[in-house]
Amino acid sequence: MSKPELYNIDDSKAGEFRQLAEGLTARIFAGEKAMLSVVTLEPGAKGEMHSHPEEQWGLVLEGSATRFHGATSFEIRQGDFYRTPPGVPHTMQAGEDGAKVLDIFAPVRTAYLKPGVGFGDGD
Amino acid sequence: MSKPELYNIDDSKAGEFRQLAEGLTARIFAGEKAMLSVVTLEPGAKGEMHSHPEEQWGLVLEGSATRFHGATSFEIRQGDFYRTPPGVPHTMQAGEDGAKVLDIFAPVRTAYLKPGVGFGDGD
Repeated sequence: MSKPELYNIDDSKAGEFRQLAEGLTARIFAGEKAMLSVVTLEPGAKGEMHSHPEEQWGLVLEGSATRFHGATSFEIRQGDFYRTPPGVPHTMQAGEDGAKVLDIFAPVRTAYLKPGVGFGDGD
Repeated sequence: MSKPELYNIDDSKAGEFRQLAEGLTARIFAGEKAMLSVVTLEPGAKGEMHSHPEEQWGLVLEGSATRFHGATSFEIRQGDFYRTPPGVPHTMQAGEDGAKVLDIFAPVRTAYLKPGVGFGDGD
C-alpha cells in the first residue's frame, strides 16, 4: 500500500493554502468523497456570509467564535461541533483569542479545488 | 431557522451510542451527506479489521494509537488526522493511555444508522 495520507492539525505547511478573508486562512485537504479544511481565525476575524450545496460540519479545535446560520447565531468554543445543512447561508467571527476550526465538506467542495481567495462562488 | 445542530466532543450523552468492540465505543451523529462518530478507546483496545465503501477520515482528539490500513500500520497521536480511502481494510489499537478519535464518513455510513453492535456489515 502507498504511503498513508497522514497529517497534523498544527502543521502549517500541509494541505493547500487558501486566504478566505482578512485574518482568516485555511489549509485544505481533498479526498474523493469529503474535504477537510483547517481554518485559522485571528482574534475578531469574520468571514462573509455564503452558502454552497455541500453539507458542512465544523469542530472548534481552539479558541471560541460566534457562528452565524441564516438569521440565527450561536456561540461556539473548543470541543463544540455542529452541522451546517446544504444551502444554509453561514459564516463565523472569532472571539478575542482567535480560533482554529476543522471544517468538513461532503461531498468535496469543488470551489476549493481551484486556487484562489475567498469562499468560492457557491458552485 | 430551527435550533442549530450543536454538540460537544465531551458530551457523553449526545449522538447515538454504539459498542464497536470491547473497550471501544462510539457516539454517532448522522447528517445528510456525512456522518461523524466520536470514538472512545480504552487503553490497548483494538477493533476488528473491516472495510466499507464510504470514505473515512479520522482525527485524534486525545491519546495515541496504532492505525492499521491493509498490511500497513502507522502511529498516530493527538492532532494527527488521516484519510482511509473507500474499501481499504482498517482498524486501530489504542495506546497505553487510550484514545479519543473523531471519525468522519462520507457519504453517510448506512450500517451505523441501524442500532447494533460492532462495525456493521460493510454495506
